[in-house]
Amino acid sequence: MEKLQPAAGNGLLDRRAFLRGGAALAAAMTGYSVKAETLAEPPWGKEPGDVVPPYGGPSKHEKGVVRTLSNPKGEPRTQHARTPHHLLQGTATPNGLHFTISHAGNADIDPAGHRLAIHGLVKRPLLFTLDALARYPMVSRFTFMECGGNSAPLFSPEPIQASVQALHGLASCAEWTGVPLSTLLEETGVDPKARWVVAEGADAPHLSRSVPLSKILDDAMVALYQNGERVMPGQGYPMRLLLPGWEGNMNVKWLRRLQLTEQPAMTYYESRTYAPILPGGKAYRFYFLQEVKSFITQPSVGLAMKGPGFYEISGIAYSGNGRIAKVMVSADGGKTWAQAALQEPVMSKSFTRFRIPWQWNGGPAVLQSRAWDDGGNVQPTRAEIVAQRGQAARVPSPLGFPSQHYNGITSWSVETNGEVRHVYA
Amino acid sequence: MEKLQPAAGNGLLDRRAFLRGGAALAAAMTGYSVKAETLAEPPWGKEPGDVVPPYGGPSKHEKGVVRTLSNPKGEPRTQHARTPHHLLQGTATPNGLHFTISHAGNADIDPAGHRLAIHGLVKRPLLFTLDALARYPMVSRFTFMECGGNSAPLFSPEPIQASVQALHGLASCAEWTGVPLSTLLEETGVDPKARWVVAEGADAPHLSRSVPLSKILDDAMVALYQNGERVMPGQGYPMRLLLPGWEGNMNVKWLRRLQLTEQPAMTYYESRTYAPILPGGKAYRFYFLQEVKSFITQPSVGLAMKGPGFYEISGIAYSGNGRIAKVMVSADGGKTWAQAALQEPVMSKSFTRFRIPWQWNGGPAVLQSRAWDDGGNVQPTRAEIVAQRGQAARVPSPLGFPSQHYNGITSWSVETNGEVRHVYA
Repeated sequence: MEKLQPAAGNGLLDRRAFLRGGAALAAAMTGYSVKAETLAEPPWGKEPGDVVPPYGGPSKHEKGVVRTLSNPKGEPRTQHARTPHHLLQGTATPNGLHFTISHAGNADIDPAGHRLAIHGLVKRPLLFTLDALARYPMVSRFTFMECGGNSAPLFSPEPIQASVQALHGLASCAEWTGVPLSTLLEETGVDPKARWVVAEGADAPHLSRSVPLSKILDDAMVALYQNGERVMPGQGYPMRLLLPGWEGNMNVKWLRRLQLTEQPAMTYYESRTYAPILPGGKAYRFYFLQEVKSFITQPSVGLAMKGPGFYEISGIAYSGNGRIAKVMVSADGGKTWAQAALQEPVMSKSFTRFRIPWQWNGGPAVLQSRAWDDGGNVQPTRAEIVAQRGQAARVPSPLGFPSQHYNGITSWSVETNGEVRHVYA
Repeated sequence: MEKLQPAAGNGLLDRRAFLRGGAALAAAMTGYSVKAETLAEPPWGKEPGDVVPPYGGPSKHEKGVVRTLSNPKGEPRTQHARTPHHLLQGTATPNGLHFTISHAGNADIDPAGHRLAIHGLVKRPLLFTLDALARYPMVSRFTFMECGGNSAPLFSPEPIQASVQALHGLASCAEWTGVPLSTLLEETGVDPKARWVVAEGADAPHLSRSVPLSKILDDAMVALYQNGERVMPGQGYPMRLLLPGWEGNMNVKWLRRLQLTEQPAMTYYESRTYAPILPGGKAYRFYFLQEVKSFITQPSVGLAMKGPGFYEISGIAYSGNGRIAKVMVSADGGKTWAQAALQEPVMSKSFTRFRIPWQWNGGPAVLQSRAWDDGGNVQPTRAEIVAQRGQAARVPSPLGFPSQHYNGITSWSVETNGEVRHVYA
């Protein structure tokens, strides 16, 4: 039996063990299964099953795999729904579990009555119905979406004991299909004076954000489909703006208007919410990019370890700048690091699943992951990002965002009893 | 304005028009949108929307986007649920719309009571719980799944007038995550005499199929997750066998047993259903591979054209042998062909979306697609596959499969009134 190669301190093993058909791993695994004697005949083998429905849903035994809601009764304030990353695997987020933030609920739009206007500094202001958009060439791309406020609890002075869903659940990933905005702007023509595009939603708050024209002409689309089917109400049915790798709030949902302008509109969300004051007293005027980031989803808070032995450490990495180049993992709080395996295909501005085998000896361990993208950007430590952005004065309320764009390292402490805690390390 | 380049007869345009930022296409498009005057304020802009649910679903305006059921009351026979390809885009199939065939309904399995046994010609017969499987290293891959009987209506002597959902809806695509069987067989050890693996489901019929051990050791997995979440009941919750590129029926759902043997078991499905008699009186003993195939989803039967002008022709291509290398499209029934654009990333044994721009002059047209894979295999014409496999003596019932593994060309006739008909051309 091939011997497992240690790759870093405290039990991290060589990621290539995966690639050798399991030969190396098997030595570590024996004991998690039991000798097969007789195979019992459970009740579901003795009777017909349930009727196949027109639109399937998860098993009733998976009732706990849902988004957590910040405002489940829909009171007149923002509603957040967070993705349960610790219960998912792979890279795609099912549409029903894609995170959403709705400032006045999910608009219920009759697609026959919906219009998209493109106007302002254009040569031919135009109004598009869904039928009109269906005539245009489409593109598909996998891309992550992340709220600028995702992971903001990590600006708290004390580590909040909460699951990866509570800490990092405002990020998800899907295959989006729609019409490139470069095509639609060829239709309207662009006045040479135009520099910005103000996008507005059809929901009651008419949420609006200003987007540089250069991004609109680069890789923006009017997204009509999400993982194959029409975008769901919480994602902006029947259409949303998609700006791969940029702050979720800018990807305006229920999109009804794109106005080309010389200057940004300085709307509520760009001038107040997403321009927090920095330690020196200044604020970023604009900060659109979701930078290189990673976190471990298994193990994590709420997933207790079941005794010493072999585990797979697994998580998600992504960057608004491009592809993930490398993810390093530590089991000793950052003293030593081993390179994780990246699941192919590694796509630009998309979730990348990383995995590394770990032999837990039952002693204390602090698990961390750190990602690099192909632009050479590296995920900062918590100390680095806090020094730059500031730390909250006190533990924030679930809705309080002391700052935005936390992309620092997350640390999970594995206790000797198998419980996992959130720590700063 | 750049001029559109014709690429083949009857209006097919250069696929690279997509890549030039729409400049070339815009010339063809003008007229599908209207001049923007005032933008009305519809009711959904004047009131709060719906409460965000823990698990989202499609808009109520998308009630028609469902699988069609062959046996909606769950009578004691097989239930088929077909994917509505004409209403979807991109390559991922949402889990709720993934095709399923259940021979006695969807088994309702309590995961705590489910076991997977690996026994027979192994050194250590083992029994795996879900918790045990969770300890093993996992892999994710996008792969299509297709019933061997998908597209069988095209063996009919007359073209059946039915949608792409009815004709080709027993194929879907998802990102699957699970434990490679090569890893689990390292755990059990393999007796050198073993050549086959007999897989058995935990549902009432205990559906079983024999799989060559070489496939099991190549790229087979015990799939636990589908598009990120646990596999749905119709896909075999809590686990199924996944054999990328091979006949759907072999990807045994509700998997409970893998027995290593010297010989195949010659079960019902391998000796009767999927071994149809060929024109010469013989039958294939085994035919596992789903070969290179493509079909156009937009336009297709039921999606009427709205007057002459620009359209995008779009469809799906895939091969159980590997990657799609090329898709050619014809608008004149196969007289001339133009190369379609393939949406990146093109993944092995996965759906690939192809697209090509088309200027419809309002006259008669016959649309066809033909795919090549990177092994040099080419999708046959209908005449070629019918000569090989035989043609049904009469138009089959919706449940009658005259033969299996139809991967020939599909032809859509666009009539001058804009309606689309299924034809043999």
